[in-house]
Amino acid sequence: MRTKVGIIGGGPAGLLLARLLHRAGVDCVVLESRTRAYVEQRQRAGMLEQGTVDALREAGAADRLTAEGLVHQGIELRFDRARHRIDFPSLTGGRTVTIYAQTEIVEDLVALQLAEGPPLLFEAEAVTVEGPEGDAPVVRFLHEGGERTLTCEWVVGCDGSHGISRGAFPAGACRTYAHDYPYSWLGVLADVAPSCDELIYARGEHGFALHSMRSRRVSRLYLQVPNGTDPADWPDERVWDELAARFAIDADWTLRRGPITAKSVTPMRSHVHEPMRHGRLLLAGDAAHIVPPTGAKGLNLAVSDVRVLGRALAAWHRNGDTQLLDRYSEICLARVWQATRFSHEMTKLLHAQPNGDAFEHRLQLSRLRRIAASRHAAAELAAHYTGLPLTL
Amino acid sequence: MRTKVGIIGGGPAGLLLARLLHRAGVDCVVLESRTRAYVEQRQRAGMLEQGTVDALREAGAADRLTAEGLVHQGIELRFDRARHRIDFPSLTGGRTVTIYAQTEIVEDLVALQLAEGPPLLFEAEAVTVEGPEGDAPVVRFLHEGGERTLTCEWVVGCDGSHGISRGAFPAGACRTYAHDYPYSWLGVLADVAPSCDELIYARGEHGFALHSMRSRRVSRLYLQVPNGTDPADWPDERVWDELAARFAIDADWTLRRGPITAKSVTPMRSHVHEPMRHGRLLLAGDAAHIVPPTGAKGLNLAVSDVRVLGRALAAWHRNGDTQLLDRYSEICLARVWQATRFSHEMTKLLHAQPNGDAFEHRLQLSRLRRIAASRHAAAELAAHYTGLPLTL
Repeated sequence: MRTKVGIIGGGPAGLLLARLLHRAGVDCVVLESRTRAYVEQRQRAGMLEQGTVDALREAGAADRLTAEGLVHQGIELRFDRARHRIDFPSLTGGRTVTIYAQTEIVEDLVALQLAEGPPLLFEAEAVTVEGPEGDAPVVRFLHEGGERTLTCEWVVGCDGSHGISRGAFPAGACRTYAHDYPYSWLGVLADVAPSCDELIYARGEHGFALHSMRSRRVSRLYLQVPNGTDPADWPDERVWDELAARFAIDADWTLRRGPITAKSVTPMRSHVHEPMRHGRLLLAGDAAHIVPPTGAKGLNLAVSDVRVLGRALAAWHRNGDTQLLDRYSEICLARVWQATRFSHEMTKLLHAQPNGDAFEHRLQLSRLRRIAASRHAAAELAAHYTGLPLTL
Repeated sequence: MRTKVGIIGGGPAGLLLARLLHRAGVDCVVLESRTRAYVEQRQRAGMLEQGTVDALREAGAADRLTAEGLVHQGIELRFDRARHRIDFPSLTGGRTVTIYAQTEIVEDLVALQLAEGPPLLFEAEAVTVEGPEGDAPVVRFLHEGGERTLTCEWVVGCDGSHGISRGAFPAGACRTYAHDYPYSWLGVLADVAPSCDELIYARGEHGFALHSMRSRRVSRLYLQVPNGTDPADWPDERVWDELAARFAIDADWTLRRGPITAKSVTPMRSHVHEPMRHGRLLLAGDAAHIVPPTGAKGLNLAVSDVRVLGRALAAWHRNGDTQLLDRYSEICLARVWQATRFSHEMTKLLHAQPNGDAFEHRLQLSRLRRIAASRHAAAELAAHYTGLPLTL
């Protein structure tokens, strides 16, 4: 098989890129190792920056997002048993965010691609990328019981942090910057209307909790837990009790409880791979960088990578111009590092240190109080949360 | 000897408090363990927030400060071999800072106090504070060969981090929050005109350097060095070479060199003692809190403690009102923690980690670039640097 752009990975990054390239008239093929059902059910993020919504809209993939997405004008910070709202529009010149689950985005993009093209192969497991230094890199993949090849002009690795694309960078051609955090998130999905209209980020006495939502009927909640926590040690009752304690402010506010339908523990890490391009192999999204979820930046970074890449490959396709491709890594990494820093700072702002460092806790409270007191401090948070503008 | 307010320590905090109380008609006595010459030559900070200048002016102690102080409208950040200026007035609604050495402030305040009162005893070494829980605390001190007592209605400990006042808090009545940094500053005084009009904070490839000044003819420079560094290992030539390397940007800028007249190594630590009051014993300045010097906050915090205390003791003296005294610790600590956090963040922003953590270094650069790019981020820095307003 031959194509212009071989895309490894059918998550939101790969699917959106395929959609953008298709609309720009650039041939491409998406190889996804899992089944359609698996991909459409993979629970991930759900907070979309304005720029992410704009990108999906420009790609003609936002009909259901527009109808069903919940536009949020702010978030709430809880600490010192009090609430403080960060109002996005007034702090950012009108920006908002939209709650719409990644699973829904993937479902929308899969449906569009299967209907309109380009080719999307499920259970097509990429094994290697060969010859990224040359003009015709080849992706070898397993599909329908045999090994196949996809010969491309460009290969884009959208195959996540455990994918094979990054491994095609020769040693010495790249560097990884990593940081592990000394805590994890226990996340639950619950069939109960959210107890809030906007997300709540709480620094409870015993640690962080986040009240998010998937829709008006489904709550998504997270608790800071120690690394290595077994979800089996957290029966539903314990989860609700601990969430209620961390969100507690006064008698007027109560947490609605309901049936928990999913429960999992996720470690927290930062991970940046530099550069994001080697020859004709480009990385996008989680394949190149992972952020802790506190800043809700993972999906949004993947989409901004793809926006740059969509324009860069379209320009190359139109007239052979590689200027934007040559600057791809630099453009994306500037944004990636800002988001990585923001995610790191939000994480440090809200989580209890396992060693209980009292000095660090006092600094946290002083940061939180400053955000509540200073328009500039709040505006910085809002600017990063709603997403820095895409600059090429 | 009896007085209303016994002040332990004749540094800027104790002297300014005495001056404020004297002008409010409150009897007080200052006990200073060292000689006048020692106190007047002790090299310390030299960057005064607007509020500090205002306080000295209100105390009628700013004639020479007004004539000789250098008003600075900004600072320069250097990183990535480029310079970025933080303009204070435009970012803070008109605030500036003033360069005027602590030695000069002390000299001015000593001269005023010796001329106009109240009593200022040199070589009067406080040994204990007795009975702070009662109405008549007693300071025992050594003076002119014998032990004396000073019976007070209030005692104020302005005797720095190694003083005896803090020790008069019973165990359990207080808590200390501390953080040590894994680097020190090598500071030099040099008889050479500064190579810059405003302070330069540089994140050089091998670490932090600060170009400050004492006057138009005397430069004050600092280098990040490992903890435990012996100044003897840094001959003058090595100091200048390393400073030049850390400040280097381009061929147009050179560091002026001159005779080094003082050289010393200072460790970096944060230290906050809570609360700042026990009964009739109050702490102010370094006796209650130490910050790393990167934010230039130590002297300014001492002065803001004393401003609160001057008003509180004057109110008590006028009509027995202890409302402000009762809130003294809370009022000061809110400000102290903001300054401690700012000093911590400035320190982390600019120093190389001794373990060379590459992830942390990338975060630093991303923070610095954000400050250069975002008005809100720069305004937060400027607000803290020029000093948060004093709120009672």
